[in-house]
Amino acid sequence: MAPVVNRLAIIGQGLIGSSITRAAVANRAVREVVVTDASPKVRRTVSELGLAKVVENGAEAVRDADLVVACVPVGQYGALAAEIGPHLKAGAIVTDVGSVKGAVVRDMLPHLPKSAHLVPAHPLAGTEHSGPEAGLADLFENRWCIVTPLDGANEGAVETVRAFWKALGSEVEAMSVQHHDEALAITSHLPHLIAFAIFHTGLKHEEATQAEVMKYSAGGFRDFTRIASSNPTMWRDIFLNNKEAVLGVLKQFNEDLSALAKAIEENDGPTLVDALSKSRLTRRKVIEKEHISVTAPKREHEDAFPIVRPYGDD
Amino acid sequence: MAPVVNRLAIIGQGLIGSSITRAAVANRAVREVVVTDASPKVRRTVSELGLAKVVENGAEAVRDADLVVACVPVGQYGALAAEIGPHLKAGAIVTDVGSVKGAVVRDMLPHLPKSAHLVPAHPLAGTEHSGPEAGLADLFENRWCIVTPLDGANEGAVETVRAFWKALGSEVEAMSVQHHDEALAITSHLPHLIAFAIFHTGLKHEEATQAEVMKYSAGGFRDFTRIASSNPTMWRDIFLNNKEAVLGVLKQFNEDLSALAKAIEENDGPTLVDALSKSRLTRRKVIEKEHISVTAPKREHEDAFPIVRPYGDD
Repeated sequence: MAPVVNRLAIIGQGLIGSSITRAAVANRAVREVVVTDASPKVRRTVSELGLAKVVENGAEAVRDADLVVACVPVGQYGALAAEIGPHLKAGAIVTDVGSVKGAVVRDMLPHLPKSAHLVPAHPLAGTEHSGPEAGLADLFENRWCIVTPLDGANEGAVETVRAFWKALGSEVEAMSVQHHDEALAITSHLPHLIAFAIFHTGLKHEEATQAEVMKYSAGGFRDFTRIASSNPTMWRDIFLNNKEAVLGVLKQFNEDLSALAKAIEENDGPTLVDALSKSRLTRRKVIEKEHISVTAPKREHEDAFPIVRPYGDD
Repeated sequence: MAPVVNRLAIIGQGLIGSSITRAAVANRAVREVVVTDASPKVRRTVSELGLAKVVENGAEAVRDADLVVACVPVGQYGALAAEIGPHLKAGAIVTDVGSVKGAVVRDMLPHLPKSAHLVPAHPLAGTEHSGPEAGLADLFENRWCIVTPLDGANEGAVETVRAFWKALGSEVEAMSVQHHDEALAITSHLPHLIAFAIFHTGLKHEEATQAEVMKYSAGGFRDFTRIASSNPTMWRDIFLNNKEAVLGVLKQFNEDLSALAKAIEENDGPTLVDALSKSRLTRRKVIEKEHISVTAPKREHEDAFPIVRPYGDD
C-alpha cells in the first residue's frame, strides 16, 4: 500500500501517541515520522527506544508535515494549537485523538491558519498503562476510530485521515461532532461517572468493611472499580469538556434508577421483572439485528469477560 | 480426607445445585448423594447425566439425610422448608445457597423442627449459564463461601457446613446474617441495580442509536450490560428480599453521584480531581494493606479483565 502522506508529525508521546508512532512505522503508513512531547523525559525515552525522529517542540515537529496528529489531554488542545498554528505548512491536515470532540474543535480552531484542515478523530482504544514505554504497534488494529468532519470540510483531508487510521488497522466510522459527544456520553462518560460514585459509596465504611468490599467484589462491584481507577486528570477534563451531554444522560439515568427503586420500595414484582427482562431482550435484539460484535472484531485479551452471576440462586 | 457426612441431599439441580452434586461426588465429600428438583425435566436430565441418585421430591430426598443443601431461587425457600420440614431426621443439618440470608432464614426457620439445625450459607460463585447441564465440578474451587450462623447455633452443625464447603474447594468465611446482607447489597445488589438502570438509559433512543451504543460499548458501557443481562426473576427476588439494605446503599450512592454531578455543573476541577483520585488511592491502599487478591485466588477465565481506558487522551 502506498504511504498515506509523506511527512507525519505526532505531538504527545504517551500511550496513544507512542502507539501511533509505532503503528505508523510498522505499517509503513507514511514515509517519515517526526515526534515530540512537552516532557524532556518522555522525549528522551522515545529517543532511546528508537521509535522515530524526536525534536524539541511542536513548532519544529510540524514544519513541512503533511499530517499532524495531536495526542494530548483534552484540556491542552488549545495551547497546543496556539503553539503549532503559525508553523503549519499550507494545506497541512491536523487531527487529534481526544475523547471529546466539541471542546477540542472549539479550542483548536481559532489558532489554526485558514490554509490548514482540521479533521477531528477519536480512536476507541487504550490499555490500563500509560507512557511511551507502554505503547503498542497493534493497539488500533480492529478497533473503531471515529472521525468527525466539520461542516464544509475539505474532502481530500477527511479522506487522508480515514486512510491513515485504516492503514493503522482500525475500522473507521464518520459522524458529526455533536453526535460523537452524545454517543460517548452514554457509552463511556456516564459509566465512568457512575463507577467513580459507586466506588465512593463502597468505601465509605470503616477499613475492615472496605477490605470486605474489595474481597467480595466479584459479585458486580469489581466491574465498577476497574474503571473507577482511571486517570483522574484525564477524567476531569472529559467531564468538564462534555458537561452538557454528560449531565443530560445523567438526568435520564437518575429517572431510570428512581423507577427501579420505586418498584422495589413498593414491592412491585411484575414491574421489576418487566424492567429487568427488557434489558436482556433489547440487548439480544440489538446485537443480533445489527450483527454487532459488541466491539469491533475482538482483541484477544478482551474476550474473557466472565459474566459473574449474582451467585447461588440458579 | 474422611467424608464430611454420610448422606447428603441436594434440592434443586440448576447451575448451583448440580455443581454441588458434581463437586460433592468428585471430591468424595460425602458417602452418598440423593438429589431432586421440582421440574420433572430437570430430574430426567440429572438422571441421564448420571450425576447422582435422583428421587421424586424433597420429602423423599431428605429422608435419613445428615446434611440437606437447598438450592432454589430466593423466593422459594419458605415453600421448600414447609415441604421437607416434617421429613427431616433428628439432628439433620439444613443449609442453603441464597444471595440474601435474612429473608431465607425468615422463610425457612418456622417450618423446620427444633431438632434440625439451620446453617445458612452463600457460595460466591456462578457462570453465565443455567440448568443442570451447565454445572461444573470445580465451580467452587478457590471461591468464597460465606457462612452465616444464627445466634446460639449448634457448633458442630456450623463446623460440618464449613467442612463441606472446604471439601468442595472453597475458602470459607463466617459473618452474621445482617452483615452478609449489607455487604452483598454494596458489592453485588447495588451494582446490578445500577447496571439495569443504565441499560435502560442507553437504549432509550431510536434503534440506530441503540446499535451504536452497543457498538461503542467497550468504553465502559459494556461492563454494565454484561451484568444487566442476568436473570430477571432471580434479581426481582434478591431486590425485594434485601430491600432495606439495597435502598440504604442506593440512598448513599445517589448522594455520592450528586456530589460529582454538582462539581461538574459548577466547573469545579479541583473537587473532581480530588474525588476521582480518592477512588484510585483507596482502592490500592485497601488491596495492598489487606493483601487481597480481589476475589479469592483467581479462576483462570476471570483474570483477563482489560481495563478499558477512556480512549485516546493519554
